[in-house]
Amino acid sequence: MTETARRGRGRPRDGSIDERALAATRDLLARRGFEGTTIQAVAHQSGLHASAIYRRWPSRVELIEDAVSPGVEAVQVTPTGDLRRDLERFVRAYLRVLSTPAARAAAAPLMALHQSAGGRGPAGIRHSTRPQFRAILAAAPAGTVDAAIDPDDVFDVVLGLVLTRILVDPVISRRRPVSHSVDMVLRLLRPLPTA
Amino acid sequence: MTETARRGRGRPRDGSIDERALAATRDLLARRGFEGTTIQAVAHQSGLHASAIYRRWPSRVELIEDAVSPGVEAVQVTPTGDLRRDLERFVRAYLRVLSTPAARAAAAPLMALHQSAGGRGPAGIRHSTRPQFRAILAAAPAGTVDAAIDPDDVFDVVLGLVLTRILVDPVISRRRPVSHSVDMVLRLLRPLPTA
Repeated sequence: MTETARRGRGRPRDGSIDERALAATRDLLARRGFEGTTIQAVAHQSGLHASAIYRRWPSRVELIEDAVSPGVEAVQVTPTGDLRRDLERFVRAYLRVLSTPAARAAAAPLMALHQSAGGRGPAGIRHSTRPQFRAILAAAPAGTVDAAIDPDDVFDVVLGLVLTRILVDPVISRRRPVSHSVDMVLRLLRPLPTA
Repeated sequence: MTETARRGRGRPRDGSIDERALAATRDLLARRGFEGTTIQAVAHQSGLHASAIYRRWPSRVELIEDAVSPGVEAVQVTPTGDLRRDLERFVRAYLRVLSTPAARAAAAPLMALHQSAGGRGPAGIRHSTRPQFRAILAAAPAGTVDAAIDPDDVFDVVLGLVLTRILVDPVISRRRPVSHSVDMVLRLLRPLPTA
């Protein structure tokens, strides 16, 4: 849930209370994991009343989503027109946001919940990084990006690369440099030779 | 855990008991989800004693892994040398194995557990589909696969594509045909033009 989305729901706002709850949530996620991050634990840790937390978030799930949600600005990469550089900055920013101890603790459990709820995507994923990715491709010099390729298809590949780098042990343990993932994406984007 | 691995540990074997427990586990996963799939529930559902189940599996986690584990044979694609066809069969077999109601219910929770345990990868992922993928590339006609590309890097991309197709709502909801994912992989593999 983004700040804007929450504001849009007309909830009462108190930045300091919000920030205390979110900081306590991140701290608990990192130290005690997803299961240990309950509203009661957040209240205890932050010195806030549980009722004050419930006024802002309907359940710990939304609170945790907000706490680990990067917000669009955290993966904000302004395209320079240097495709390789822009893609690498984008992938690194994405990985950074999902690699914090709190995000690592929350990612798979949130996916599991959304999965069983048939609901929304994992936190940090729906936050419109897709348009940003499109903007990076749009800023690339002519001839470097195949016009026939669907940027959304490539974005799905990037998403898969980022998630497996965070979540899947056999990929994590290979410790491939990020530049290899970027190479893969660049290969995908290249115009096909007219042979 | 594969059949071979369990046999290797010298546990007592009774195929019918194993199969009853595994079938009950799959059924419970599909109907009640990961949290509802306890050893007690499996015992009740299968008519087995909980002790008989514990003799075979140290905890419900290993039981669930076994129940949703495809075994290598489930993603067995014999390369024909037709790269597109082989890749499509491989991706479809992989998706099929991970798309059963039981596997869908178990995938993200298992990843979450392995994540917090710093342990092994999610079930169905470590089962050596990687060598199979390599074999498919090795059987491809000369000139269709860039010799400079690391098949393992491409396999990681395939893994990401498969997982996001199963787990990530924004990707699931796009409902792209599997052939698009195969196109992506083929693009990755193409030799670079010597320009």
